[in-house]
Amino acid sequence: MKKLEDYVVSIPDFPEEGIIFRDVTSILEDAKALHMAIDQLQEKIEDIDFDIVIGPESRGFIFGMPVAYNLNKAFVPVRKKGKLPCETASMTYELEYGVAEIEIHKRSIKPGDRVVIVDDLMATGGTIEAIIKLIEGLGGTVVKCVFLMELMGLNGRQKLEGYEVESIIQYPGN
Amino acid sequence: MKKLEDYVVSIPDFPEEGIIFRDVTSILEDAKALHMAIDQLQEKIEDIDFDIVIGPESRGFIFGMPVAYNLNKAFVPVRKKGKLPCETASMTYELEYGVAEIEIHKRSIKPGDRVVIVDDLMATGGTIEAIIKLIEGLGGTVVKCVFLMELMGLNGRQKLEGYEVESIIQYPGN
Repeated sequence: MKKLEDYVVSIPDFPEEGIIFRDVTSILEDAKALHMAIDQLQEKIEDIDFDIVIGPESRGFIFGMPVAYNLNKAFVPVRKKGKLPCETASMTYELEYGVAEIEIHKRSIKPGDRVVIVDDLMATGGTIEAIIKLIEGLGGTVVKCVFLMELMGLNGRQKLEGYEVESIIQYPGN
Repeated sequence: MKKLEDYVVSIPDFPEEGIIFRDVTSILEDAKALHMAIDQLQEKIEDIDFDIVIGPESRGFIFGMPVAYNLNKAFVPVRKKGKLPCETASMTYELEYGVAEIEIHKRSIKPGDRVVIVDDLMATGGTIEAIIKLIEGLGGTVVKCVFLMELMGLNGRQKLEGYEVESIIQYPGN
């Protein structure tokens, strides 16, 4: 039987030289693989007590929403700066070159909310670390982070020490 | 009982003066309303014979994916230029000020594929018209377009004449 990782297309030197891009759209364009991906993410969190699925823009929307629907949870998007219309909390974090800023609606997280972060890929962990700070800043608790893929060579888990992290597909390098 | 439109928050003058932004994240942050939104979109297409859900970046990802999962269909994202790593077909279309360019992976649509477009909002219909051209250019057939919201005052349906279009919530103005 074809496994989930067999559906991922790897593209060398995209979006820049030296990076192997793992294309998940090739999973989505096969109805069976799409189901498998969502089901496997869901299995990692379905026995946990939590209220909200957090999905980072924009592939986190793709994987987070079906999981939220299936488990009867709310879905809260984390977006790039300027996209959310109501009052936001924001966080700046460092990229390899330059900085990025992400936002969340303040009203979306209430003190005591238990949240799970769902995304397609954990790389350096920088974005996820920033999201955790945003959520905790609003009084929420991050109970788990689940990823479809993880680039082990980038040591993202070091940044997320103390948090529960799981991924479906692990790639040894970056 | 609270209806879906009761959950939408309307923000005047966002992102620019004169525009009333209809915020759907307020639907998503209520688990019941999230379910209602997906179920109502799904009802509009569940009896149709089709293969692929198309979701435009990025709120089309939010609403398209759960529908694709639930109906056992493939999901194909349409993205802004430069985001998709494999060979793409692209389409440029006019905005109020300037132009926008969207892309789809060529391999994702095969001649004869029947597709449904799912998005949060139909405004002028310009983006959807461009997506239809992309799909038809690859030999696919657009069997229906469904939207959570429609701004009736912008006459988007005129651009999409000859196609089946449905929306859940209709706003009279723009």
